[in-house]
Order: sequence, then structure tokens, then C-alpha cells
Amino acid sequence: MLIEEMITEMGRAAKDASRILRKTEREIKDSALLAMAERLLSEKEAIKDENKKDLSHAREIGLTSAMIDRLTLDDKTLNSMSDGLKEVAALPDPVGEVAGMWKRPNGLVVGKVRIPLGVIGFIYESRPNVTVDAAALCLKSGNSVILKGGSEAIHSNMILERILKEALIETGLPEKAVQVVPTTDRDAVRALLGLDQYLDIVIPRGGEGLIRYVVENSRIPVLKHYKGVCHVYVDEFADLNMASDVCFNAKVQRPGVCNAMETMLVHKKVAAEFLPAMGKRFLDAGVELRGCPRTLELLPYAKAAVEADWPAEFLDLILAVRVVSDMDEALDHIERYGSNHTEAIITRDYDRSRRFIAEVDSSLVLVNASTRFNDGFQLGLGAEIGINTSKLHAFGPMGLEELTTTKFIAYGEGQLRS
Amino acid sequence: MLIEEMITEMGRAAKDASRILRKTEREIKDSALLAMAERLLSEKEAIKDENKKDLSHAREIGLTSAMIDRLTLDDKTLNSMSDGLKEVAALPDPVGEVAGMWKRPNGLVVGKVRIPLGVIGFIYESRPNVTVDAAALCLKSGNSVILKGGSEAIHSNMILERILKEALIETGLPEKAVQVVPTTDRDAVRALLGLDQYLDIVIPRGGEGLIRYVVENSRIPVLKHYKGVCHVYVDEFADLNMASDVCFNAKVQRPGVCNAMETMLVHKKVAAEFLPAMGKRFLDAGVELRGCPRTLELLPYAKAAVEADWPAEFLDLILAVRVVSDMDEALDHIERYGSNHTEAIITRDYDRSRRFIAEVDSSLVLVNASTRFNDGFQLGLGAEIGINTSKLHAFGPMGLEELTTTKFIAYGEGQLRS
Repeated sequence: MLIEEMITEMGRAAKDASRILRKTEREIKDSALLAMAERLLSEKEAIKDENKKDLSHAREIGLTSAMIDRLTLDDKTLNSMSDGLKEVAALPDPVGEVAGMWKRPNGLVVGKVRIPLGVIGFIYESRPNVTVDAAALCLKSGNSVILKGGSEAIHSNMILERILKEALIETGLPEKAVQVVPTTDRDAVRALLGLDQYLDIVIPRGGEGLIRYVVENSRIPVLKHYKGVCHVYVDEFADLNMASDVCFNAKVQRPGVCNAMETMLVHKKVAAEFLPAMGKRFLDAGVELRGCPRTLELLPYAKAAVEADWPAEFLDLILAVRVVSDMDEALDHIERYGSNHTEAIITRDYDRSRRFIAEVDSSLVLVNASTRFNDGFQLGLGAEIGINTSKLHAFGPMGLEELTTTKFIAYGEGQLRS
Repeated sequence: MLIEEMITEMGRAAKDASRILRKTEREIKDSALLAMAERLLSEKEAIKDENKKDLSHAREIGLTSAMIDRLTLDDKTLNSMSDGLKEVAALPDPVGEVAGMWKRPNGLVVGKVRIPLGVIGFIYESRPNVTVDAAALCLKSGNSVILKGGSEAIHSNMILERILKEALIETGLPEKAVQVVPTTDRDAVRALLGLDQYLDIVIPRGGEGLIRYVVENSRIPVLKHYKGVCHVYVDEFADLNMASDVCFNAKVQRPGVCNAMETMLVHKKVAAEFLPAMGKRFLDAGVELRGCPRTLELLPYAKAAVEADWPAEFLDLILAVRVVSDMDEALDHIERYGSNHTEAIITRDYDRSRRFIAEVDSSLVLVNASTRFNDGFQLGLGAEIGINTSKLHAFGPMGLEELTTTKFIAYGEGQLRS
């Protein structure tokens, strides 16, 4: 009950702060971001001291070295966080943009104006740098934010909150514009998800378990993706050298992320020419292949794929491979097993490129390029707070504009409805 | 369990149909809409016969004459439903529109293309004409739809479904693109709200009770508004004749709708001049006034407003009236009691008009015009499937474009991520 009261009070304060933020001009928001960037550097030692508390606790409870790596705030990470704040300050402010204006036959001038969403709840796991990134994007887009990070990063997150708040106060902005939930108690998440009177949107970032928990318990709309089961379809008219490079990049360049390829579909007419060399290249890179029966004929060293491999997000050096009889079979496979995240075709055929773009129902559909480009920075949005694979509000990577909405405005001279 | 299976099967069929619809060209969708318009007229007598079954049942269970009126399908209503279908056919198709395209430094050409949402669940109350309106908007925007109407309209809705399906089949479109839930069992709604594997969005239209039920039980994102508590603020610099006409129109022209004014805020400097004549005008029109203490001094015949009157959606000839000391007090009142729906200021002062537009957090903010303009047709969207007062996806009236989303597309020549 005490936690619930504390979280409710945070929600109320965030809502009050958002009323100020929504009318704050870009210049002031940018000053606050630059003040944050400076303070991150001048307080480096204090931050590292707090971070050490998290790190020694992490070692005590036996976190893996990869997890400890993600948790660590060293000089390099802090410099890059500070640079990130400056980059967000340099991005255009989406708030106030007029997204169209027109005159009605009765003389009423109607327009759509971009406004902040209001209050955002952001729930994430270990990396403390996300605390600063997310706060920056929310502030720039005129939203207040309540951040709930992982329990293993609590000391780091609390000192980062103090530093961000000092910059807000220095700039004359409400300190409650950025709040970190100051507890590792899990009840705090549940309480946050019930605050539909104050929060406009919740963004969870982390493993599928966290995201399912948020979706099932939230009364607030959620922007999220569960998983990325991304496909590359190597068409019969593919440039096979390009196909090999793109598939290798999509699988191997960073296998642990949501836009890495998990299943490769190969047209039967090029399978015999393409698969042996491609398989060898993957094998040399340590990729475990799981193939359909036709794949196994060509790659006898591959494992036999089971049904569970087709909808799997491996996030690892594992790849499912299937030979398809035609493009229809590739499209059917993607429709059935895909996650609406990212799909690519490799082809030199104009009609097939058009058909793939038109029919695949994914947040990014590519022709002749790696699935790894599904990312706000790579696509040119300037920033990214996450990727949404539900169709609502923003399908795909979300940058600053996706943290806003539009309202209608109308200028009249006494118009009445008859 | 049988109902759950039936609804699940409807969801699966709707999803299959949506895969065809999303690649259907405008010409074919429009042909289907025109075929529907024709069949509605040629089957008039059969429709009226089925409608009579609903009407006689409605009389048996003692529905009010207003409700029976809404339920009735006569020649006039059927003609206007048929015309509505033709109007939707004439609207532009939002699907396929390219909402921007740009080139990245690595040569990748990235764009955003408008696509249908997929499968829409539409849950509504008595009017059977909504069945046809909603089906038309969903079809035109490339979505399949599952319609769940009120139990009192079941015979009318079932024959309308048959007629719509015949037009779909005649045009070569999947008949499962439009489905009416063929039961009055309430478990059907609960089953529908659990189908997040098939439905992309749910739109409830009806009373606050229905909408709260949907929000609390849905695992699918919901676009909705609970209520419209709309304000007109008569500023100290208002043209008082215009203020009188706008306030009268906003309250009296159609009091039972969500964009009617429920509270009038009057600046204290014009209250003595404005309120007596305005009060008389409302009184003559049968409007019951509920005023703050300062209002009661000027309008002794008004009732004293109680706290519950300020957040109330009367949907009737009842108006809450409050005299405010300044514009801040008006803005604070709207922030506290408003429903983010529609607010208007009446003023001749340029700065106040700008401030009201900038600071009021409602889906439509007007200067010198009636709140009654918050409507898809009136604002020029060409159509309306409902009004959304949550900030996500579409804030305000939703037309065809709001039944779509965008996906990213990218044209490459072998680009890899480094």
C-alpha cells in the first residue's frame, strides 16, 4: 500500500510537470539537455562510485560477465551518454509542427498540430545508460517520464536521476519531469501499470517475459514488440553474391538483436548453387544451421529443423533454413511464422521486388539490403526509443515524432452548426 | 465454449480475408461499395420485414420511443444508408499513399507507406445503420471487420450482413471481410476481446458502461472516448453577441451528443453584461442552469451547482455555469474537469486566442466557433468512425486515414550494416 501511494504520487507529479513541459519552447528544453550533458561529465567520479555498488552486488549474486558488461558505467560509456544528450538537443523539435491546415466551406480554418503525448512510463532492464537516453527523448518531445529500471542498476539510476533533476532545476524546468522509481520492489511495476488517470503510454524494453507481463497487467496503452523473427528470402533471380553478403551480415554482424535474421528462405531453383557456399561461410563463422529436408540434402552437416525452429527468435548464432518452391511459399511462410518486424527479399526482378514490398506485413520491408537496418538511427529518424510491432500509433522504430500525437485546432469567426 | 470457438473461427477468417484486402486496389473496393448500395435498395422490403421483428420485440420489452426510433429502418433511412455507401466509394483511398521518402548517406532509399491496420473489432449499441457505415469505412481502408451490434437489432444486422456479403462475393472479394456476430450472447463480446492474435484494434461505440467494459476486458488496443465534457470560455474580450450565439448553438442545437457544451465559463468582467440575457435565452429554450455562487447572484432562477456537476456529461438540456476571475482560472477548470474532447474560447484578443490554442489539451480546440464542429465530416475528414480521446494513434475524430498505419520500406543495392 505504501508503494502504491508513492507511485500514485509520482504519477500525479508527472502529470503536473507535463502541463508545463507541453508549453515549453525548444530553446529551454535544449538548454536542459546540454546542462545534463555537462553534469554527466563533471560528476563522472560520483557516478562511477555509485555504479561500483551495483557492480559488486552483481558479482555477489553471480550475474554473467555479459550482464556485468552492460551494467558498467566507465569513462567511455559516460562520454558517449553525454554526447547522446547533445545529439538529441541538436535534433528538430516535433512539438508545434503543423501537420496540415485547410479551410472548410463555412470559412472555418482547421489544422492539425503536433503535441506531446503527456506522461510516459518507461520500464526496462539492466543498462543504466537507457535511463539517460529515454529521459532525453521524452524531455525533447515535451513529455514527462517515469523510469523503472532493473533492480541490479538501482544505485546507478538513482544518481543519474539526481544529476538530471539538477539540470532541470538549473534550467527552470519542473524537477518532476524526469523521475526514477526509487525501489527494486516488483509491486512498483504493477502499481505503475494501473495509473491510467495519469500515464498516457507505457513502453517496456527488455525480454519477452517482461513485455508480456506489462501487456497483461496494463490498463494504459502499451507500445512494444515481443520478438523479431526476421526473414531474408533469396529469390530465384537474386544476385547470389549480394545474397550471401546480406544474409551473412543479417545473421552474424550482431546476432543478439531483434533485427538479426532468424530464418533464411531460398528459392529451389538457386538452392543447389547458393546453399553449399553460403552454408560453408556460416559454418566457418560458427553458425549452427537447422534446415528443412531439402536443405539437408544440400547441407548434410546441418541439423534437421523442428517445427519450433520456424517461429523461434534465437538471438544467437543459430539459423533456420528452408528451401521454398516459389515466392508464394516464401510469402506464406513469413505470414505464418513471422513477427511483423523486418523482412528482406534479394532479387533482380522488378515485379518480385514490388510484390514483396506490397504484400509483406512487417514494420520494415527491404529489397536488397540487410534486416539490420531496422533501427531509428539507421532509417534516418535521428533517434530511437524502441520498435513497435503492433500496428497502432507507430509501426516500426519510434523516434521523437512517435512520442507525440496531433490535436485539431480551428479558427472561426462565430461559426455555428446547423 | 461453443461461442468461444465460433468467435475464434470468425477471427481466423477475418485475418485470412485481411491478407487479400490489403492488396486489393481501390477500383475493386469501390465496386463492392456500389454493389452494396444497390442491393440495399433492391432488398428494401426484405430488410424492413426483418427490422419489424426487432421492432415488435422492442415494443414487447418496453423500449422507449427514442430507442425504437433509432432502431427503425424505413425507406428514408435505407436511402440514406445507400447514399452513405456511395459517398464512401467517392472518398480517396488512403492505402498505398507514400507518407515521405528519403535517401540515407549509404544510398538506401527509405520510405513510409500507408497500409491497413488489419482486422478491426467494432462493438456498438442499437442503430443498425452503423453496421453498414462501419463496414463501408473498414472495407474502403482495406481492413476486415467483425461487427457486434446490440441484441435488440440482431434480425436487422443479420440481413444486412447477408446483403453486404452478397455484394462482396459478386465483386470477387472474400465474404469474410465483413462479419456480424450472429448471437446476442454477451460471452461473445468477452471472447472477441481476447482474440489479440487476430484483431489489431477494437472500437467500441455507445454508452460509458459499454466502453469501460471493453477497456477493462480487452487485450487488444482500444480506440475510444468515455465522455465529452466540453467547455466554452467567454473571455473578457469576447464579442458578446457572438458568444451568445455560439454558446446557444453548442448547448441547444443537439444536446444529446458528445460535442455539445456541458459547462460555460464566463470571465467576471463580462458576467454582469453577458449572463442575464444569455440565461434568459437558455431559459426560453428549456435549458436548466446550474451555477456557481457568482452565477446565482446574476441568475437567481438558476440551481446551485454541486461538485458533481463540473465533471458531468449531461447529454441533455442542462448546463453548468461558472464565473471565473481570469483566464488562468478557466484553463485550470478545464484541465481539472475536462475530458480532453472539445473546448472553445470566444475572444477578440489575439494573445488569448493563441494561448488557449496552445495550452488546452483537447482533441479539438476552437477559437470563436461552436464545439459542435468536432466531427469527422465537419472538420473535412470526409467520414467518421468515432472520436478518440486517448492520445494514442489518433486523437480526435477518426476518418479513413485513422483506420490505417504506415510501414517502412527500403530499396537497397546490397547495403550491409557495419
